[in-house]
Amino acid sequence: MTGHKLDYMFDPDSVAVIGASKSPEKWGASILKHIIEGGYEGDIYPINPHEEKIQGLEVYQSVLDVPNDIDLAVIVTPKEVVPTVIEECVDEGVETAVVISSGFGEASDGRSEAEERIAEIAREGGLRFAGPNCMGIFSARADLRALMIDVIPKEGNVSFISQSGNLGIQTLDRGYMNNLGFDMFVSSGNEADLGCEDYIDYFREKSSTESILAYIEGVKDGDKFFKVSKKTTPVKPIIIYNSGETEAGRKAAQSHTGKMGGSKKIFDGVFKQTGIIKAELTDEMVEYAMAFNQPLPRDNEVAIYTRGGGWGVVVADLCNKYGIKTPDPPERILKKLDEILPFYWSRGNPIDDVATTDPSAQFEIIEQLKEWDIGGVIILGGVGRFWIDRAIESGYSEDLVMETHMELMDEIIELSEDKPVVTVAFKAFDETDTVKKLRNNKIPVYYSPESGVKAYRKLIEYKNFLDSLEKYGHSK
Amino acid sequence: MTGHKLDYMFDPDSVAVIGASKSPEKWGASILKHIIEGGYEGDIYPINPHEEKIQGLEVYQSVLDVPNDIDLAVIVTPKEVVPTVIEECVDEGVETAVVISSGFGEASDGRSEAEERIAEIAREGGLRFAGPNCMGIFSARADLRALMIDVIPKEGNVSFISQSGNLGIQTLDRGYMNNLGFDMFVSSGNEADLGCEDYIDYFREKSSTESILAYIEGVKDGDKFFKVSKKTTPVKPIIIYNSGETEAGRKAAQSHTGKMGGSKKIFDGVFKQTGIIKAELTDEMVEYAMAFNQPLPRDNEVAIYTRGGGWGVVVADLCNKYGIKTPDPPERILKKLDEILPFYWSRGNPIDDVATTDPSAQFEIIEQLKEWDIGGVIILGGVGRFWIDRAIESGYSEDLVMETHMELMDEIIELSEDKPVVTVAFKAFDETDTVKKLRNNKIPVYYSPESGVKAYRKLIEYKNFLDSLEKYGHSK
Repeated sequence: MTGHKLDYMFDPDSVAVIGASKSPEKWGASILKHIIEGGYEGDIYPINPHEEKIQGLEVYQSVLDVPNDIDLAVIVTPKEVVPTVIEECVDEGVETAVVISSGFGEASDGRSEAEERIAEIAREGGLRFAGPNCMGIFSARADLRALMIDVIPKEGNVSFISQSGNLGIQTLDRGYMNNLGFDMFVSSGNEADLGCEDYIDYFREKSSTESILAYIEGVKDGDKFFKVSKKTTPVKPIIIYNSGETEAGRKAAQSHTGKMGGSKKIFDGVFKQTGIIKAELTDEMVEYAMAFNQPLPRDNEVAIYTRGGGWGVVVADLCNKYGIKTPDPPERILKKLDEILPFYWSRGNPIDDVATTDPSAQFEIIEQLKEWDIGGVIILGGVGRFWIDRAIESGYSEDLVMETHMELMDEIIELSEDKPVVTVAFKAFDETDTVKKLRNNKIPVYYSPESGVKAYRKLIEYKNFLDSLEKYGHSK
Repeated sequence: MTGHKLDYMFDPDSVAVIGASKSPEKWGASILKHIIEGGYEGDIYPINPHEEKIQGLEVYQSVLDVPNDIDLAVIVTPKEVVPTVIEECVDEGVETAVVISSGFGEASDGRSEAEERIAEIAREGGLRFAGPNCMGIFSARADLRALMIDVIPKEGNVSFISQSGNLGIQTLDRGYMNNLGFDMFVSSGNEADLGCEDYIDYFREKSSTESILAYIEGVKDGDKFFKVSKKTTPVKPIIIYNSGETEAGRKAAQSHTGKMGGSKKIFDGVFKQTGIIKAELTDEMVEYAMAFNQPLPRDNEVAIYTRGGGWGVVVADLCNKYGIKTPDPPERILKKLDEILPFYWSRGNPIDDVATTDPSAQFEIIEQLKEWDIGGVIILGGVGRFWIDRAIESGYSEDLVMETHMELMDEIIELSEDKPVVTVAFKAFDETDTVKKLRNNKIPVYYSPESGVKAYRKLIEYKNFLDSLEKYGHSK
C-alpha cells in the first residue's frame, strides 16, 4: 500500500457486507455472491442480525462483533438503518465504505438531511465512503467484484468513475465486448462524501491506471475538480461524458443522484482548460478509452487504407471536417502499389485497394505503410470476418485463410509499434480471432468508420494539449 | 408487372450471367452461386465462350445463342469486352443489365470514354442498366440475390440504393442484425445510365416499398433528383446519407465511383426543401429505417420510461437539445405509480422505476403509458437480456422469467398500436427472444440511448414535413 486512504477501498485486506442476505432476490445476496465468485482472497464478513451462515460464511450480528480490522464495509441495508450502521463502522474503526442503499438525496431536492447526517458522522469518525445510491466497486488488483449486477469487467489499465450505476454497468459490459480492460471502477452514486474529484486524484497516483474514464451528472466541488483535473491530464488522459447539460437533463439528474448539473458552457470551458477529453455519446466512453492504448500521433496527418471505396469516402470526409490531413503517398509508394493493384486503384489517400482478393497485395500495402513517414494509420475493413468468409467462398481452406489473415494481423501489430493504428471491421459485432488478436495487442477495432476517425481525432487532440503544456513551460 | 422498365430488373423472368465462371475465386462464380442459392425461380443462363456447364447449368457462348428472351443480364466480364457484350445484349433484345465490371469512370477524372460509350450503345438500343463498378442487386419478390458478396438480406419493406457496394453490403448486413428487411436493393455504382433518381422514382411506385434508403456520393441529374424526391417524400420517407461533402471526400468519391460530390450546403438545402431525412452517420441509415416502421408521432411530446437513472438523464438531455418535450405525467398517474414504486422513484418524466425488481410494477407502468394521452414513448432497458439475467440470479426459473418478459413485450406491442414506441436494450448486440419479438412486431430496439432518441426525432421531423405540406395545400 502507498498509504493512501482509498487503498483500503480498492485493495482491502477485509470486507464486511452489512445487510448480507440469504434471499437470492435481495441485493445483499447478490453483492456477496459476486465478491465470492470474483475470487477476492481477503477476509469476508457478512453482517446480519438474524442469520448464522450465509453462502457458507460465518455471519456477525454487527461490525462491532467482528474480531479483526475491517478495511471496507459494503452497506446494503434499508435506508433507515444506514446512520446507525455508519456509526458502528466508525466505532469499529472501519476505514472505508461503499453505501449501496438508496432513497437519500435523489429522493428530495438534492442533498437530504439523512445524507448530510451520514456524511457528518463519517467525516468526524475518519471514515471515507462511496455512495449512497450506488452499484458498488470493482478492483482488478484485489480481485474485488463488489457489484450488485453480475457483470464481469476485463482487467486492464482504465479506471472508471460513474455517477450512474446504470451507465457504469453498461459501460463495463461494452468494454467487455470490445476487450477493454479496467483497473478500478466505482459507481459513485450521490457522492455524499467521496466525489469524482477524489477518485481522479487517487487514480492519477496509481501506475496501474493509464487512463481515467468518468460519467458525471454534476460536480460537488468544482474548484477541486478543476485543480485535480489540471494536475492529472499532463500525466494520463481523462475522458468524461457529462450529462445534465440541459434543463430537462438537470431535472432528471436531480431525481437520479441528487446532483445539480452545470451548464454545458461552463463544463465545455473547464474541459478545454484542463485538457479533458469530452465524450459526446455514451458509446464514445469505451471507444475513446480503446484508442488511448495506442501511441499518440506526432501530427495531424493520417494514412487511410481501405478495402471498401465507400468507407474511404466517408472517412476522408470526416478527416477533412475534423482538420485531419490526408496527404497523398509519396510517388515511390504510388509506383510500388501500381505494380500490385488493379489499374483502377485510387492512387491517393485513401489507399483504396479496390477490394483485391490477392492477400500478397495487402501485405505489400502494410509494408508500404511502414515505410511511409506518416503520422498514423486508419485501416478500414480487412481486419475481421468479412474477407475471411469471401476467401473461403473463393475455394481456399479455412485453415490457410485464417493463417494468412493472422499473419496479416502480425504485420498490422508491427506497424502500430511505430505509429498509432486504429482499425474498423466491416461486420458489426465481429469477434473473430483476427479482431481479438488486434485487441489483445492494444489496437482498437471499431464497428463503424465514424467511430474510428472520432477516436483517432481524440488522440490528436490530446497530443496537441500536451504540446501546448510544453510550449507554455508546464512541467509534468 | 406494372409495365415499368425496371420491373425487368427487379422481377425478371430470366437472368443471364455474362462472364459466369467455374473458378470459385472469380466474381463470375460467386454471383451465379448466390443467384442459385437465393432461390431465384426464373431461367438462368450462364454465358461463357469456353465452358459447357457451370454449377450444373447449361452454358451459352453469348447472349445471342440464348433461345429465349432475357429480362436481365448480369455482366461480370473484364472491362475491355463490356462494350461488345452490351452491343450483343442490345441485339438480343435484353431489357436490363447490371454491369459489375470495374475500371471505368472511377479510374479517370470522372466519366471515362468507355463508360460514355456503353451508355450510348445502351441508350440507342433501349437497354437500361445499373453500374458499372457495382456489386449487384437484390429483390425480395423475385427471390433474386444477384450479389457479389454472400450477404443474405432479410425480406421487408425498405428499398435501398447505394452508390458504394461496400456501404451497400455493410448496410444490408447491419440491417440483418437488427431484423430490418429489404424489398429491393441496388448497388448503383458509377451510374453511367440509371441514376439514384431513377430508382427512387421506381421505388415510389411499388407498394411493397414503404421507405427508401440511399447512400450517395453525388447526383448526376440534380434537377431530376429534386423533382423525384419532392414527388416521393409526401408518399413515403426517403432517408439519405450523403458523402463527398468535403474536398478530401470529393476527391475520394471521384476515384471511387467517378462522382462529383455536391457541397454540403447545397445538399442540406435540397434535403430541407424536399423533406429528405438526412443520416449523419452510416449506422443511422439502418437505425432510421427501423424507426419508420412505427406510426408517426402526433406531436413533439414524449414519455420516457427508464429502468436506469443514467440513461434517463442522457435521454432527457438529448430530447431537450432536439426540442422534444418531456412533460410530467398527469397527477393521477403519478399517484398510481406512487402506490407501486419505491418512495424515491423519479415522480416525473423520465419515469425512472429505480430498477424495481417487481415485474408487476413494470406491467403497471406500461398500462399507465397506454392511459396517458402522450405523443409517443421511449423505453430504456427492460426489453432485453439484462433484467432477465438478474431475475434468474434472483432465484426465479428461467422459464417463468422468459414467460413474464414475453408477456411484457405483448403489452409494449399493444402500446405501440396507439402511439409510436422506440426501445433501447441495456446490453449491446442483444438478440434475445424478447428483442426479436419486438422487432418482429416493427418496434425498433437500439443499443444506445442516443440512437433511440435520434431515430424518434426523425419521426417527428418527417411528421412536421408532412404537416407543412398540408398547411400549404400540397395534395398527395
